[in-house]
Amino acid sequence: MALKSDTILLPIQEMPTSWYNVLPDLPTPLDPPLNPGTRQPIGPEALSAIFPMALIEQEVSTERWIAIPPEVLEVYSTWRPTPLIRATRWEKALETPARIFYKYEGTSPAGSHKPNTAVAQAYYNKKAGIKRLATETGAGQWGSALSFGCCKFGLACTVYMVKISYEQKPYRRSLMHVWGAEVYPSPSDRTNAGRAILAKDPECLGSLGIAISEAVEDAATNDGVNYSLGSVLNHVLLHQTIVGQEVEKQLKMAGLEPNIIIGCCGGGSNFGGLILPFLADRLEGKPIRFLGVEPTACPSMTRGKFEYDFGDTIGMTPLLKMYTLGHAFVPPGIHAGGLRYHGMAPIISRLVADKIVEPMACCQNDVFAASVEFARTEGITPAPESGHAVKVARDEALRCKREKKAETIVVGLSGHGFFDMGAYDAFFAGKLEDIEYQPS
Amino acid sequence: MALKSDTILLPIQEMPTSWYNVLPDLPTPLDPPLNPGTRQPIGPEALSAIFPMALIEQEVSTERWIAIPPEVLEVYSTWRPTPLIRATRWEKALETPARIFYKYEGTSPAGSHKPNTAVAQAYYNKKAGIKRLATETGAGQWGSALSFGCCKFGLACTVYMVKISYEQKPYRRSLMHVWGAEVYPSPSDRTNAGRAILAKDPECLGSLGIAISEAVEDAATNDGVNYSLGSVLNHVLLHQTIVGQEVEKQLKMAGLEPNIIIGCCGGGSNFGGLILPFLADRLEGKPIRFLGVEPTACPSMTRGKFEYDFGDTIGMTPLLKMYTLGHAFVPPGIHAGGLRYHGMAPIISRLVADKIVEPMACCQNDVFAASVEFARTEGITPAPESGHAVKVARDEALRCKREKKAETIVVGLSGHGFFDMGAYDAFFAGKLEDIEYQPS
Repeated sequence: MALKSDTILLPIQEMPTSWYNVLPDLPTPLDPPLNPGTRQPIGPEALSAIFPMALIEQEVSTERWIAIPPEVLEVYSTWRPTPLIRATRWEKALETPARIFYKYEGTSPAGSHKPNTAVAQAYYNKKAGIKRLATETGAGQWGSALSFGCCKFGLACTVYMVKISYEQKPYRRSLMHVWGAEVYPSPSDRTNAGRAILAKDPECLGSLGIAISEAVEDAATNDGVNYSLGSVLNHVLLHQTIVGQEVEKQLKMAGLEPNIIIGCCGGGSNFGGLILPFLADRLEGKPIRFLGVEPTACPSMTRGKFEYDFGDTIGMTPLLKMYTLGHAFVPPGIHAGGLRYHGMAPIISRLVADKIVEPMACCQNDVFAASVEFARTEGITPAPESGHAVKVARDEALRCKREKKAETIVVGLSGHGFFDMGAYDAFFAGKLEDIEYQPS
Repeated sequence: MALKSDTILLPIQEMPTSWYNVLPDLPTPLDPPLNPGTRQPIGPEALSAIFPMALIEQEVSTERWIAIPPEVLEVYSTWRPTPLIRATRWEKALETPARIFYKYEGTSPAGSHKPNTAVAQAYYNKKAGIKRLATETGAGQWGSALSFGCCKFGLACTVYMVKISYEQKPYRRSLMHVWGAEVYPSPSDRTNAGRAILAKDPECLGSLGIAISEAVEDAATNDGVNYSLGSVLNHVLLHQTIVGQEVEKQLKMAGLEPNIIIGCCGGGSNFGGLILPFLADRLEGKPIRFLGVEPTACPSMTRGKFEYDFGDTIGMTPLLKMYTLGHAFVPPGIHAGGLRYHGMAPIISRLVADKIVEPMACCQNDVFAASVEFARTEGITPAPESGHAVKVARDEALRCKREKKAETIVVGLSGHGFFDMGAYDAFFAGKLEDIEYQPS
């Protein structure tokens, strides 16, 4: 028997050595971030209290390619290139003529795509003489990734973790401890923001907005401490483009070009990293569809407005032009914690406004039903976030079946679900709510 | 910069297509299993009530190579060959001249080496017309692996899970549900064994021994139902030899031969799968050391007796000649649940008695300290079981440093620790007990 592998492995020598910066190639340039007081465009100095200059430069760079530092490539090589896997068993179960490939980022130490930017951000901060990074985390995907990044470059790491997650989902917190980070339930008594909230409500369970305020305050008020954000900003999407570049090379190895690329969208970095390297092909006329999938419970792209809004909930950050449900919107407690963000990366928002990205929304039960089918055929248990892309890939594969089309579908499987099994339990118990967005 | 990968990937075409059966090559033949009543060797028919004939034949086969069925190879190819990774970052941290390689089985769908035999057992049972498999599980590694295997071949799967683990460690149970298994807390009211125990003690928290009794009863008393065991028996070790065979090929790709091979030992299948393919080299005079690592809390090889004993706690199985702490010994609740077994595979026991395997024992805190160091350098968070091998590899690497020897050390990293983060929490909190064995 001639064994065939469904996995397309990219040789390490072929791993991309530059990030792709989409800014010079966007059909419509981004509107600039504004100072919330003056509503004038902000300059780099406005961000220098909490970010190193190298990242601020990447945020606004017009260079198409930005070389990945050798130190970052070295850490990437711990788990990259990641596999692109043909889902032959799932295709068979769906009886679809479509070819479904999934790019699996769950092989990273933290189990998701997040380390791609965490490692880069830790590196640039270390190089700038920073001693410690502060950040927020909800369920802990980003916090664990940054803990890993800081561990690799000898930086201390402080994570403000939303208190209810800190208590109810302890295992990603444990992973942060393994990599040496300090993790505090937020609101904490370590910051003015946290103390003020605790004074009003000692039992406050916290929110991502509060945790951001604490982390930003920590960075802004302490010497040698910077803040780190895991999505939304241009430089974060930039770092994730290694994912899409690898997909491009891997598909080429298979002699294929994609017809559809599907990714889940929280802040937009997973989806951006996946699709941006294919944008030039699309603009040159290749018929590639980019499907961005968000939860019906937090549908910034499909139900939000394209306008200037704060990046955080409290209203401390510069104003960003993006699809948003309003910075005061608190998304319901769906299990895809990484998709609970009121806004969307300005780059992705622009591409939605320009009709290049097709946004769509799914509800939880459909997502988990598709994820279970995926796990039973392909073996891998998807993270709830990634399950959104799995669900839409399934719909497209079934459309291909009806239309008898052998399209090539690429799914971003951004992480595994081993830290989210409680969500699967809730699904099997019939306890998952399908929540529709209610404008306030 | 020329990027170099530390990962040795075996091409799928090089994946072993036979299992290696060590029985004809053992320097001392195994003593036969005995009927506990007559103390006479048992024949195959004694096992046919609960195992399919193909597995019973493998249990006693004298063929050196047993072809892996194409259907099993096809499922293996979902995740195999697994990577052999050079631990360059850890070597650097240890300042050792040794070359440390780890064979990582955590990339399987269930996150450990267990699917190697689960898939094979499910296949042979399906082929024999069996409709459902019953098994026991403690923390859930084996139960989740068998659930996956059954899912692949359309068999139903019933898992009796030790009640305290069912309640306290729900996430591997969730994984079993993802793959469609039924999971019952044991003691359950589904069997006479379970009902009898519940009648005496309705609050009984269960034990592996009780769960085995329930699973065996379920198989023995229901048509179309067989029992499946995840370690100890010859055919289970046989299926795991794909691991060591891959290591052999991967080291050859690197132009190396092993000086030391280290694996953790619970029932012995992980360790056996790793070392048995190298036994012939050792017997031909190559200086390969085989280090089998068990917990000080359950030290069958280092403190037990080499004698006939029951494989289960209740005393239902045939008698096996093995190192044992006595079938009534209930191991303390250490976090390496997979190493809590009173006995040891007859094959491994024989090699210990013949001074071919060097047994050694570690305590929990040393294991977790080494595992955290490993996670901080290599990125991967080891399962508590695998951490035992990591700890001994560290000791050997430091010995190589003292002795200025560039030995090649292979560590079996049998699984990841993502379902065991509570154990890491206990370690960081200083709550892990180092338990010494107390003979009863």
